[in-house]
Amino acid sequence: MKISSIFPQGKKGPEKFFTGNAYNYGLVAMDSTLTTLVGNVYFEPGARSNWHTHPAGQILIITSGKGYHQIEGQPIEILQSGNVVTCPPNVRHWHGASPDMGMQQIYIVPNTEKGVVEWMEAVSDAIYLSL
Amino acid sequence: MKISSIFPQGKKGPEKFFTGNAYNYGLVAMDSTLTTLVGNVYFEPGARSNWHTHPAGQILIITSGKGYHQIEGQPIEILQSGNVVTCPPNVRHWHGASPDMGMQQIYIVPNTEKGVVEWMEAVSDAIYLSL
Repeated sequence: MKISSIFPQGKKGPEKFFTGNAYNYGLVAMDSTLTTLVGNVYFEPGARSNWHTHPAGQILIITSGKGYHQIEGQPIEILQSGNVVTCPPNVRHWHGASPDMGMQQIYIVPNTEKGVVEWMEAVSDAIYLSL
Repeated sequence: MKISSIFPQGKKGPEKFFTGNAYNYGLVAMDSTLTTLVGNVYFEPGARSNWHTHPAGQILIITSGKGYHQIEGQPIEILQSGNVVTCPPNVRHWHGASPDMGMQQIYIVPNTEKGVVEWMEAVSDAIYLSL
């Protein structure tokens, strides 16, 4: 199933940070004035980020499709259009599409003077398919 | 023409800050951790904000419909789905729908520890209809 988006698909994320096909399209670049990085990611079905942290946290806005978000130690959250989730600073999380349907999400990384992202290991199938 | 949204319509903005009908739906509340206020505004056709400034600037993401954004001293920008505009800190601007079609926009106010918004006078018909 094709998931619609109001943004171009963008550039495929590297295999060292993503399982499957995830495409990033930048919306607001880093600067010292707004100190906020904004973009859109399209996760194909089955695709997800590695585990990672954000030094100042992250906000996700789901605009289409179906996906997952998990903060380490908490249950997987099911995400759909209109959902908004946040992750606190320096907390391990991952996000991605559901196995059967892709997901479009806008991401907001605040206070980028503290850093943007620290990448860690891939999310195993055992975790991803545990829902 | 009805403009679609993935969010509920929310609450009508006060007449002292808006001309016409503009509805605000909060997505991320102010806090001291993410320091970022996020929400969605639906502007009915003809509706627009007053002139205002943001102490730390603002990011707007247009998700549906057609609208306008103007930074004082610059031409009116025409906005449509997929457009992203930014306004620097402490710069006067206004935004709203076009006269004939409404607009859905996500707003992001970064660094809320500096403040959120300073409201000023209404945008006159002479300015709004000058395009």
